[in-house]
Amino acid sequence: MKRRDFFRNSSLTAAGLALSPMLFSADDNTSLLLADLKDEAKNIIFLVSDGMSIGTLTMADLHLQTTVGKHSTWIENYKNGRFKRASMDTASASSLVTDSAAGGSAWGGGVRVPNGALNVGANGEFHKPILQKFKAVGKKVGCVTTVPITHATPASFCVNNKSRNNQPEIAEQYLELKFDVMMGGGDQYFSAEKRDDKKDVYAGFKTAGYDIAKTKSGMNNSLNTNKPLLGVFSDDSMPYTIDHKSDKKLQNEVPTLAEMTGVAINKMKGSSDGFVLQVEGGKVDWAAHANDAPGLIYDQIAFDEALKVALDFAIEDGNTLIIVTTDHGNANPGLFKGSKADENFARYQTMKKSNTWVMQNLHANLKPSQLTELIEFGQGFAISDDEVKIILNHVEGLSEEELQDYNKMPYEKFAQIHKNYTNVGFGDMNHSADFVECAAFGPGSELLTPFIKNTFLHNMMLRSVGITK
Amino acid sequence: MKRRDFFRNSSLTAAGLALSPMLFSADDNTSLLLADLKDEAKNIIFLVSDGMSIGTLTMADLHLQTTVGKHSTWIENYKNGRFKRASMDTASASSLVTDSAAGGSAWGGGVRVPNGALNVGANGEFHKPILQKFKAVGKKVGCVTTVPITHATPASFCVNNKSRNNQPEIAEQYLELKFDVMMGGGDQYFSAEKRDDKKDVYAGFKTAGYDIAKTKSGMNNSLNTNKPLLGVFSDDSMPYTIDHKSDKKLQNEVPTLAEMTGVAINKMKGSSDGFVLQVEGGKVDWAAHANDAPGLIYDQIAFDEALKVALDFAIEDGNTLIIVTTDHGNANPGLFKGSKADENFARYQTMKKSNTWVMQNLHANLKPSQLTELIEFGQGFAISDDEVKIILNHVEGLSEEELQDYNKMPYEKFAQIHKNYTNVGFGDMNHSADFVECAAFGPGSELLTPFIKNTFLHNMMLRSVGITK
Repeated sequence: MKRRDFFRNSSLTAAGLALSPMLFSADDNTSLLLADLKDEAKNIIFLVSDGMSIGTLTMADLHLQTTVGKHSTWIENYKNGRFKRASMDTASASSLVTDSAAGGSAWGGGVRVPNGALNVGANGEFHKPILQKFKAVGKKVGCVTTVPITHATPASFCVNNKSRNNQPEIAEQYLELKFDVMMGGGDQYFSAEKRDDKKDVYAGFKTAGYDIAKTKSGMNNSLNTNKPLLGVFSDDSMPYTIDHKSDKKLQNEVPTLAEMTGVAINKMKGSSDGFVLQVEGGKVDWAAHANDAPGLIYDQIAFDEALKVALDFAIEDGNTLIIVTTDHGNANPGLFKGSKADENFARYQTMKKSNTWVMQNLHANLKPSQLTELIEFGQGFAISDDEVKIILNHVEGLSEEELQDYNKMPYEKFAQIHKNYTNVGFGDMNHSADFVECAAFGPGSELLTPFIKNTFLHNMMLRSVGITK
Repeated sequence: MKRRDFFRNSSLTAAGLALSPMLFSADDNTSLLLADLKDEAKNIIFLVSDGMSIGTLTMADLHLQTTVGKHSTWIENYKNGRFKRASMDTASASSLVTDSAAGGSAWGGGVRVPNGALNVGANGEFHKPILQKFKAVGKKVGCVTTVPITHATPASFCVNNKSRNNQPEIAEQYLELKFDVMMGGGDQYFSAEKRDDKKDVYAGFKTAGYDIAKTKSGMNNSLNTNKPLLGVFSDDSMPYTIDHKSDKKLQNEVPTLAEMTGVAINKMKGSSDGFVLQVEGGKVDWAAHANDAPGLIYDQIAFDEALKVALDFAIEDGNTLIIVTTDHGNANPGLFKGSKADENFARYQTMKKSNTWVMQNLHANLKPSQLTELIEFGQGFAISDDEVKIILNHVEGLSEEELQDYNKMPYEKFAQIHKNYTNVGFGDMNHSADFVECAAFGPGSELLTPFIKNTFLHNMMLRSVGITK
């Protein structure tokens, strides 16, 4: 039902209030959505820097300020007053500290669910995912991300599933949904060779009329067709931006988040009923989990470049609501005080490789001088002999298999060593309860109130395009 | 010069632009202050939760949500739309990461200075402190804090001094300034017995006609006089709120920040030309430095109660601008994810003592069972035998003097142990570069733009009351 029709009929309004107390409860702040919508949006681009603590947004901006003399797009649009801002409470139904499935579901289904679930409540109840709602009213819909496209945050806008871990099943759910653009990593969930059940999910998409892209050029070729697009560019997640930038082959074959965002917009912008796109900087979260500061800062900047693509389109288009936020803090990184804080922070300017790249190049027979060279080559500074020993002692007893296991590798120790050279530290390797940044631009952005629960954004998206459920 | 007169004369405006490029530079965002001021403020209350990372604001609010079912005053006034919000870049002239002297000077003198300096630039140039400017136009002025009243943040609104460490000299500078209300800790900087130079600074204040309060009742008695008030309630900083709440003697003798704020307002509100008051929750910063989470959370709540006192006055008064912010992040604390995050966070509900209190009760001959009992009594949970050993091993070799030395004591180790029971962790023991929260209410709050440098607030305060320099 269109919003204007809905509110024209006062008895229906009363019924709405009675039937959906959650939707209108003052506690949820959603009552403020009854404020006048000035202009309906036709399109929505919802951008998520997953697991972005305020320190992540800050350090990306300071890196840009100190290298190119400019703010990030996010901060610049705070500064110029274009963005409306809010602070957001990110809790889930099961904890003050959410995971990405529950965090995404608050937006995607409009109801807080327990951690781990995708739009499925504690008693098994389903909440309809928002891209299904938008598809039902004729809009084109899609998701792009730098982690598997079946991962929690895109999935939370698309499907009901009791567990985010059912990624092979989520790939099949996507096939049923037949959304217009789905791009990211996750080949292992689509490929017959890699799936346990040997199903060829790609074949299903092909039969359903999709362009299937595995490379940047494949993706770009889809701009010449009217077919829906499935783009899968890596086995699991896509490379960290800092590693991608320093590798010609990756640059040629694997698109950036900004490039995927541009293609997704171009594929859908011709839709007469508009489109809704989710864009996720998913590896910001992974870098925070790994306390991988070079990975973190460069991926936040890559997210910011995708934001610029979306915002430039929205400014020109005039009918597009932009929402940019994160689902939760993660690891609460910071540039910390010290006599050399500024010059140490400047080391990120010349780094070429993530901490993860260093970890992936460790092996049991590495000599101290080789580790020193590896870090100097990838990150531009020499760690001390004692620090070299800490890393080598850690990996010494590990099997080949364990060397490939993220949980066995000395990510935390390496981050603590890094701090001695960069002044960037982390408080943990997991999500935080911190209230987070949220911003909006374009028609519908006037609905954003200064402090919201995450569920608010579900209702805000619906109302901004003139539907109520 | 009154703002309205200033802008009436266009040649003067041009001259102003030429003479004060900093004041009007687009980079500083201050050009936006040329936006219309709707109503001039008569009074300003500027509240600083020193060293407040977003995690500190969040955890105080979550603690209140989960104990009394209400938001903090700060967050509630985001939610109800009463506060205008901004994000603030806190850098100093010497670093991306400021200290409190330079952070306060950006507000107090309107110019970024090197870390450690109070309104003195790198080349020795003086920038006039804002309370001197307000005093010169007839306003009553004052500061209240929970750390020594001679400490960096109040001093940054009052004096020029090349070093924040010159606290004995700053006490004498205060005497020359003859401001209306100065309250906090710092007896050692005023007392003849305690000062190296044996000067009796109190005697000077007495001669100058001050009420001198050393207790809560002494402070309250000053409400019956028209004299200016110097209140000094402890040798150095005042007690942590959590320790104060659990100690009847402290409760009787030592006022809270909210009580000091109320008295300061009542002492000055009769001023026909208005008043300007700085209120600092100074021990929020000290608790963050010590990674003392119980100290941190309860002091942030005490700050919030002072904010409520100020805001209630401002709402009733109608002529008062409220600014509430912090000078920088510190330690980037967070409530981090874990299967018991919520129940562990609930431990703060029954804690009675700060980590600092535990540290102050350690001594070299403490038995393991005594340490366990100490922590159980003060904080309500038993740490493991291995954790007991970590603490006792640390203090074993320390002299009596070292046991009193903050830098020698195992604050960081104890915080890491605490994290196992509370899920609250810290990224460092020093300030961060994080962009921080800033909010405003009342006449002049319309001048606040969404992203500011710290210096912006100096100009905003001046303009809000209709003066330009």
